[in-house]
Amino acid sequence: MLEQKSSCIAIDAMGSDKGPAEMVAATKMAVDSVKNLRPIILVGNEAELKPLLEKEGLSSHPDISIFHASEVITMDDKPLVALKKKKDASMLRAIELVKNGDASCVLSCGNTGSLMAAGTIKLRTLDGVDRPALATVMPRKRGHFVLIDAGANPSAKAEHLVHNAVLGSDYCRHVLGINKPKVGLMTIGTEEGKGTDLINQAHSLLKKIDGQIEYAGLIEGFQTFEEGVDVVVCDGFTGNILLKASESLFMLLKNFVSEEIQANMVRKMGYLLSKGAFDAIKNQLNPDNYGGAPLLGLKGNVLKAHGSSNKQAVMNAIRIANEIVSNDLTRHILEDIEAANNIIYDAD
Amino acid sequence: MLEQKSSCIAIDAMGSDKGPAEMVAATKMAVDSVKNLRPIILVGNEAELKPLLEKEGLSSHPDISIFHASEVITMDDKPLVALKKKKDASMLRAIELVKNGDASCVLSCGNTGSLMAAGTIKLRTLDGVDRPALATVMPRKRGHFVLIDAGANPSAKAEHLVHNAVLGSDYCRHVLGINKPKVGLMTIGTEEGKGTDLINQAHSLLKKIDGQIEYAGLIEGFQTFEEGVDVVVCDGFTGNILLKASESLFMLLKNFVSEEIQANMVRKMGYLLSKGAFDAIKNQLNPDNYGGAPLLGLKGNVLKAHGSSNKQAVMNAIRIANEIVSNDLTRHILEDIEAANNIIYDAD
Repeated sequence: MLEQKSSCIAIDAMGSDKGPAEMVAATKMAVDSVKNLRPIILVGNEAELKPLLEKEGLSSHPDISIFHASEVITMDDKPLVALKKKKDASMLRAIELVKNGDASCVLSCGNTGSLMAAGTIKLRTLDGVDRPALATVMPRKRGHFVLIDAGANPSAKAEHLVHNAVLGSDYCRHVLGINKPKVGLMTIGTEEGKGTDLINQAHSLLKKIDGQIEYAGLIEGFQTFEEGVDVVVCDGFTGNILLKASESLFMLLKNFVSEEIQANMVRKMGYLLSKGAFDAIKNQLNPDNYGGAPLLGLKGNVLKAHGSSNKQAVMNAIRIANEIVSNDLTRHILEDIEAANNIIYDAD
Repeated sequence: MLEQKSSCIAIDAMGSDKGPAEMVAATKMAVDSVKNLRPIILVGNEAELKPLLEKEGLSSHPDISIFHASEVITMDDKPLVALKKKKDASMLRAIELVKNGDASCVLSCGNTGSLMAAGTIKLRTLDGVDRPALATVMPRKRGHFVLIDAGANPSAKAEHLVHNAVLGSDYCRHVLGINKPKVGLMTIGTEEGKGTDLINQAHSLLKKIDGQIEYAGLIEGFQTFEEGVDVVVCDGFTGNILLKASESLFMLLKNFVSEEIQANMVRKMGYLLSKGAFDAIKNQLNPDNYGGAPLLGLKGNVLKAHGSSNKQAVMNAIRIANEIVSNDLTRHILEDIEAANNIIYDAD
């Protein structure tokens, strides 16, 4: 019984912008479409969740249960204040289920800062890992790549970057199904010796563990959306700015196109004819397809989905959470970090 | 005579991907369209340049002259090696003209690394400035903004970021004609105390010089292409990656659109009808309109234009170089850096 419970997925059913109904609807979609779905614990206000489960026909489903939590951390809450003041928040209770071994992965669309802080404080890092890293799956023309760290650890040391490389590789291999993911270290100017001391140190260490991971070497910003590597490694400061600035540029272009297209009737007609092209692009670049951002390196799995995720996006995140749990991501990370540390700490 | 010469623009006529013909054609365009254009010295192989000047009808123009240089630094040259081995390179001779007071600004489309290294080594930094910073003008939906530093100083200290803020403000005010440019410091999470030690220190210092510059505070990556600030300050590592990754994403989307549009006849027709919309967007976002990236903080002005700049883009860069020289950018920077240093170094 405990064995079974520990491979559950705990879902913070309250933290999403779209509210619990969307989370329950996503759960129903996952039940209907995800193969070998692990049991799900919906964490949140029981009085709200019960009728939603009924509505979706999940009330008596043997693998769907509710764990009551009376409070909700909102997007406006300050991360560390929320941790102290809202002890019975759905997000925190869901993390505690993982901590206590009642679940193996927490999925939340809630406040990112709170989730990262609470995940780190409550679950703690795996042996051999100093700092967790936030990985995010980014689209390109064909396929996608993992950017790690997208903001968990802004002041990274060289060994943290090496750990990011291992964490990102393991995520690709054991969750995204990329067999031999190539790893690039983001820098400026790819000649040896350029960039910063941090990058040069990390580059030396990464060369030492090449073979354990597929280290493809240094890459520059202009290669970000090309198809050279599967894992882009950077510190959390650079990674967060890269991610957010890319989103900002994408929004600029999207709004720009829709505004210019509306400018007159001929353009509108033209757009209708060529709409298939834009739908294809939107579909490939839609972040909803990529199922959230895992906070990696903790004693337990934490998956963050976007605050405004619709049920389709949450369903994809549940599918990813299911892969994480089924393939025992944490065990692989523990082994691979140990192997990497044996090399990088011996080598000096 | 010296007075007049010292306000010349020295153009590296050989370093561009498109060759000297494009540079001379751009010079002709500038002669025809830039008001109060300063004298121009074209630096490069005289035997190549003379017939090009003749072709453009500039041979006997009183304000256009040639300074012979026998070598060319190519894009494949390693920056520091080129400096040592190609003493008579057009880029280096052009910088020397500025150093010797025969010109006031050098414009080059050549190897960025060489230009930054040679500019810094030969011209040296202005009093009060430790490190030069590369500023780049980036488009958004309406208008544009300055990103500084785009890659000159990857390991910045807090006072360097403050200097970047002053340099970027002065460039906006005295070259781009933005009267009271608002300055934002790029970070992750805008709550006080988040981000890195570097950012927190720089933020404190910038608050002290608010009033001298218009300091708008911390900004995050998602605000990059919004319209909140005119100057985005970051270290050269982050700035270079932000710039290059944005270019990478833009290319991805551009290629994606053109590929999908070609996929069938209906889409092609639709595109033709809505082409006005895409032309308007391309026109607003075209980097050729923004006239190059200045390396700021040196005893002399250095302006870098893209290696593949066409004559229109080079002409815009000449226009900007003319503004830099006419408005005596270096003098303003010297004064404003001194004023900022008086505050930030006293304050501790």
